[in-house]
Amino acid sequence: MTTICVLCGGVGAARFLRGLLRVVPPSDITAIVNTADDMRLHGLAISPDLDTCTYTLAEVINPETGWGLVGETWQAKETLDRYGGQTWFGLGDRDLGTHLYRTQRLDEGATLADVTREITAAWDLELNVLPMSNDSVRTRVTLTSGETIDFQRYFVERQHADAVRHVEFAGADRARPAPGVLAAIQNADCVVIAPSNPFVSIDPILSVPGIRDAVVQRRERNVAISPIVGGGAVKGPAADLMRSFGHEVSAAGVAALYQPLAAHLVIDTVDDHLAPAVSETGMTPHVTNTMMTAIDVTTALAEFTIATVDPTASRSV
Amino acid sequence: MTTICVLCGGVGAARFLRGLLRVVPPSDITAIVNTADDMRLHGLAISPDLDTCTYTLAEVINPETGWGLVGETWQAKETLDRYGGQTWFGLGDRDLGTHLYRTQRLDEGATLADVTREITAAWDLELNVLPMSNDSVRTRVTLTSGETIDFQRYFVERQHADAVRHVEFAGADRARPAPGVLAAIQNADCVVIAPSNPFVSIDPILSVPGIRDAVVQRRERNVAISPIVGGGAVKGPAADLMRSFGHEVSAAGVAALYQPLAAHLVIDTVDDHLAPAVSETGMTPHVTNTMMTAIDVTTALAEFTIATVDPTASRSV
Repeated sequence: MTTICVLCGGVGAARFLRGLLRVVPPSDITAIVNTADDMRLHGLAISPDLDTCTYTLAEVINPETGWGLVGETWQAKETLDRYGGQTWFGLGDRDLGTHLYRTQRLDEGATLADVTREITAAWDLELNVLPMSNDSVRTRVTLTSGETIDFQRYFVERQHADAVRHVEFAGADRARPAPGVLAAIQNADCVVIAPSNPFVSIDPILSVPGIRDAVVQRRERNVAISPIVGGGAVKGPAADLMRSFGHEVSAAGVAALYQPLAAHLVIDTVDDHLAPAVSETGMTPHVTNTMMTAIDVTTALAEFTIATVDPTASRSV
Repeated sequence: MTTICVLCGGVGAARFLRGLLRVVPPSDITAIVNTADDMRLHGLAISPDLDTCTYTLAEVINPETGWGLVGETWQAKETLDRYGGQTWFGLGDRDLGTHLYRTQRLDEGATLADVTREITAAWDLELNVLPMSNDSVRTRVTLTSGETIDFQRYFVERQHADAVRHVEFAGADRARPAPGVLAAIQNADCVVIAPSNPFVSIDPILSVPGIRDAVVQRRERNVAISPIVGGGAVKGPAADLMRSFGHEVSAAGVAALYQPLAAHLVIDTVDDHLAPAVSETGMTPHVTNTMMTAIDVTTALAEFTIATVDPTASRSV
């Protein structure tokens, strides 16, 4: 048995997990998901990255939007529009049911991990999906204008168009890893840092006391997948943030960031020429197609990724 | 100008207001609505009686259910069903938009009266709709079994099938009338007690300190419409509750309850023979058709009702 633990943001991580499920039995996979993007809106507890992972793996993600549920309708939003309510964060009618359920269960005293287990089970997912923490951690983005705003305001409402000075994870210092998180990291045969945003998806997970240490301590059996391909982000503001924070926007820049965390870095074939620069940081580069545009590519990427740590690990399931 | 103030529960009151709007200009009408049925479910602030009044007057009430919005869909509920969530309280997708908006505004610090004004304005209503209080008052129902449950659990989930020992209005002692409520009662030319449930719609309004006194002090210019017709309730558990609490289930029983509050009682033509018994309680009986099955009947009832207090008051508008 080869057990895999994946540190996850949203879309990129969800796609990677979809491939991983084709090469490792679900019971051997633990996904630890960023919850610093979570928010309360309209009184509802919304966990975007958890839901993106769940919906993607359940094959019910909305292909038109990349988030929310397939077959979505927008009746609640139309009523909100009538009132001049806040509609910048898209909440489809089907998707609302998930937020209603989560909110009710949290109000009843369930933990976010409890609710996540219930929701993933209801979608017949067999892998172990864990929020990074049951405690509230919130990514706050300080813009170069000096204004500090919640992550979803930056990411969704303003379409991550603002220049960012820094990000912080409010509440992280008091947060505890969700039950099972540290053990999953410590006991996995391979820890994968998914191709997610280093600053606003992976860093918040590592900001929960205990998690970074647990990852660093087993560096030799950890592998990251570069979210930067050909000098740009596959999706989202990762490239802009790297630039803002003074890092080289390349797979080599990612290596410089991730080298304390993992011995291995998977980079795209277009970045083949950067392999020496990656090596210079102390990470071992591994080159393959990382563009998860089709499930076969994604499956091959998953197999390739875990083989960087243990060449005998993967097999088709 | 004849100003009218109506103490309101849900369906019966909403229908009466619909007729009243055809005989009095909207700016001369204040509806004071029971909010002790309100609840938080799935984190959302739900105000059933306020919404029934608003949707009915906006002519968008769902004719199939008698609550919620016309053209409703149930996608959020289907998702909730998948999770085994709480679906006993029907929340349609369109209706959800109202609850989302109300919850967000309350979380932002708006009062329930603020939000109610915004929502009714968005539906182009010109009458003044006030919650009885901005403070939380919650009807709690103690069953003969000894169990005490929230009103909506009794009313919706259990379909008001349980025998009731008593009701209480938690928080009423600390609640204040919403701004404008006492003035509307004091200054109206006519106060109408709508044909709503005396125990769980009207009594909660009167339980807010100051409101009962304001009503009693102007008893001679107040008129109630009996919610009991032909020995039964037109809708809901009013008859069962009257019986449980030891009252005669008839228009005369209603008169015995309401005589401290109003000088006049409108009773249905089928209860014509009870006029002497009503008189004996000290209320003046007025007989007409009170079954609001068509808008013409409802309009005539509204005109008739306010004429009991001031025969020159109403005119078609």
